Amino acid sequence: MVARPRPLSGFPEWLPAERIAEQRVLDQLRRTFELWGFVSVETRAVEPLEQMLRKGEIDKEVYVLRRLHADPDSSDSELGLHYDLTVPFARYVLENAGHLQFPFKRYQIQRCWRGERPQEGRYREFTQADVDIVGDGTLAFHHDVEVAAVMADALGALGLPHLTLQLNNRKLIEGFYRGLGATDVGAVMRAVDKLDKARPAEVRALLTAAGLNDAQADACLALASVSATDASFVDDVRALGVRDDLLDTGLEELALVLDGAASIAGERVTVTADLRIARGLDYYTGTVFETRMTGFEHVGSICSGGRYDALASDGDRVFPGVGISFGVTRALGPLFARGLMGANRTSPACVLVAVAAEGTRGASAAVARVLRSRGIPCDVAPAADKYGRQIRHADRRGIPYVWFPSGSGDEVDEVKDIRSGDQVPADAATWTPPVEDLHPSITLPPI
Amino acid sequence: MVARPRPLSGFPEWLPAERIAEQRVLDQLRRTFELWGFVSVETRAVEPLEQMLRKGEIDKEVYVLRRLHADPDSSDSELGLHYDLTVPFARYVLENAGHLQFPFKRYQIQRCWRGERPQEGRYREFTQADVDIVGDGTLAFHHDVEVAAVMADALGALGLPHLTLQLNNRKLIEGFYRGLGATDVGAVMRAVDKLDKARPAEVRALLTAAGLNDAQADACLALASVSATDASFVDDVRALGVRDDLLDTGLEELALVLDGAASIAGERVTVTADLRIARGLDYYTGTVFETRMTGFEHVGSICSGGRYDALASDGDRVFPGVGISFGVTRALGPLFARGLMGANRTSPACVLVAVAAEGTRGASAAVARVLRSRGIPCDVAPAADKYGRQIRHADRRGIPYVWFPSGSGDEVDEVKDIRSGDQVPADAATWTPPVEDLHPSITLPPI
Repeated sequence: MVARPRPLSGFPEWLPAERIAEQRVLDQLRRTFELWGFVSVETRAVEPLEQMLRKGEIDKEVYVLRRLHADPDSSDSELGLHYDLTVPFARYVLENAGHLQFPFKRYQIQRCWRGERPQEGRYREFTQADVDIVGDGTLAFHHDVEVAAVMADALGALGLPHLTLQLNNRKLIEGFYRGLGATDVGAVMRAVDKLDKARPAEVRALLTAAGLNDAQADACLALASVSATDASFVDDVRALGVRDDLLDTGLEELALVLDGAASIAGERVTVTADLRIARGLDYYTGTVFETRMTGFEHVGSICSGGRYDALASDGDRVFPGVGISFGVTRALGPLFARGLMGANRTSPACVLVAVAAEGTRGASAAVARVLRSRGIPCDVAPAADKYGRQIRHADRRGIPYVWFPSGSGDEVDEVKDIRSGDQVPADAATWTPPVEDLHPSITLPPI
Repeated sequence: MVARPRPLSGFPEWLPAERIAEQRVLDQLRRTFELWGFVSVETRAVEPLEQMLRKGEIDKEVYVLRRLHADPDSSDSELGLHYDLTVPFARYVLENAGHLQFPFKRYQIQRCWRGERPQEGRYREFTQADVDIVGDGTLAFHHDVEVAAVMADALGALGLPHLTLQLNNRKLIEGFYRGLGATDVGAVMRAVDKLDKARPAEVRALLTAAGLNDAQADACLALASVSATDASFVDDVRALGVRDDLLDTGLEELALVLDGAASIAGERVTVTADLRIARGLDYYTGTVFETRMTGFEHVGSICSGGRYDALASDGDRVFPGVGISFGVTRALGPLFARGLMGANRTSPACVLVAVAAEGTRGASAAVARVLRSRGIPCDVAPAADKYGRQIRHADRRGIPYVWFPSGSGDEVDEVKDIRSGDQVPADAATWTPPVEDLHPSITLPPI
């Protein structure tokens, strides 16, 4: 049907062992999100184009759809593939507000599409895992702490390389700039946001262009250099001498989010207040999050988000939200490409039931059925080859056990651990493999 | 950000309770497929358009993509969203043949897109769950039995309304038509395939047009009327007096597949040999499958497939396959629309930890943390309202327990079953809910 296909750049696909590792990551994310009471939502893959571009995101490389046999005069509104899970979730909330209970806590794990130039960690098709909490009219601040904590908990359980969750607060930086006397707070924020990519002198020039004098620009750069894993950052900011009510609120909020996330993060996640993080182009109004993966800083933030005072609005009602989005493919793709993450087998089967002769395949299938009824994944050998060949079939897939059904009612079955070569009598109704052999194990990268 | 959204016809989305039911169905499918040793594969959502249309499927309403800011002179090949999981899997096998072990057993659960006119059970975006076994050069017949059996096992565990898995075999019907003296076997098959939609007289006219005389047409219609849940169909076919080697092979294969699937199907699945099933337009060469859901016959087959002698080929190597595809959305959509399937709560949480005052939120979060560490999903009340209001918050979501942290170190915590009103002292480190309360329960339709 198809001939000589080649991979499409930006549309990654995984081999079985990588897929098993990805599944384990997705399972763990779901488990953590559900333990925290977040409910699963999936949205359709498409949104009307005009809604996706409403946010002013004209720079987004949206994939637009047309039906192959569509009537060119059709009045169907143009549809595009969603480029994130926030826009569709906001629309879902508005569309179903009457059927949801607020505050509504949802997680959403789905693919997104962006027609950007592919590079490592940046794909045209990728999976995101988002958590958001959305309120009807108001949403208490403690949900900012909750969202940071659930993601710190989730990320810490994944076994990725060391992660640094970087927190900041828009009120803090906006209050600081205001207290400093800046008139165009947005321009200052956008300038500071360029610190990742531009030289300090260039940022300083942008700050001057935004109307700051040298002392003010210095203060902005000093603020951006503040970073701490505990509340000591509050004193560092106070030492800069700026006073402002919004700044005070921001400092208090950031200290609480930092404490809440740090208290739950495991050894693989460091939580920091990093006052350079601004997420300048997005409409955040309080807490903001970014996350770096050690050794993979070049792929950018793998987990980002923050507080929106209006995640969604239909003019009448306003739905504030706070959320964070983990880039599953962005994090795993580079690990898979370097062979740093995988699985110890390419089959879910724990046991291969051997077949002595095609005429006794039914007996082997019966053994498999008993094992499966007891939750033990197993496969039946595809051909009644010599046993050495059947063992090789298991070995090539990493299946640890080969089961030999007895030749007659008098004999007993035997099971061989093909790693050690140990072969022992066994009864399918009672034999149980060590729990670590039941399912594939995931190979994790070093911390 | 968005205002007044309306549902898009053909792009279904589920509310939380429906999504929980869908998740349970997907989990159960995955569990069964993995117990049988099938490995998960996911493919990208897009395929080059020319490959999707290669099969001659010009009638497919493919969604074609373009990047919003694409260079119109770009030489990028045109991409479309996949309309099934067979075409992408065939391409995946060819692309990765050097990295796969054959016979390769995979399952794939993903969304597909078709721009067809939406109606009940037919969507523009829908989830399919496929199992296929593909060989390198050859693929033993017993895999046909395996594929029928794994799907019968999987479907039987889902709790759907009663299902009828209908089996037939192309060798059987082609051999029969050949033995009968038909010269254009394909035309006869396509005519018989219309029995679902056309009156018998119309089908008879088509058969005559295909070159059959009246007696031959009668025999074809008689064959199509044969149906049985056991091997008695073999005698019924023999009684029609046609003799042909291919017919014999087909009868033998069909009897084996029927027996293999019937032996594993539970009370919710009937397995039948139904000799009217032909799947006329697809390139099947042996076993064919369709499935009807009782009470929902109008949505068509919800689970179909069969044996392809060339699932994929790169000219050099040929990869025969046998597979079956369950239309998850096609089956669940009508059930959700009628309220026949859902969940007993809209939150994964088993416990809502109450908050006595905002100042003690930390104590409530600590209780939640202990419960979560023990695998008990829980939520913390969003506001320190009166307890009656907090209980109502749990009740509206179906969360069965509300936990009251003690006011001081001397007192003990208490937990209330809000359904019975029973409230008892409890310790988060040891309290365990009944297993049926730990996760949401699914409401099943009657058999």
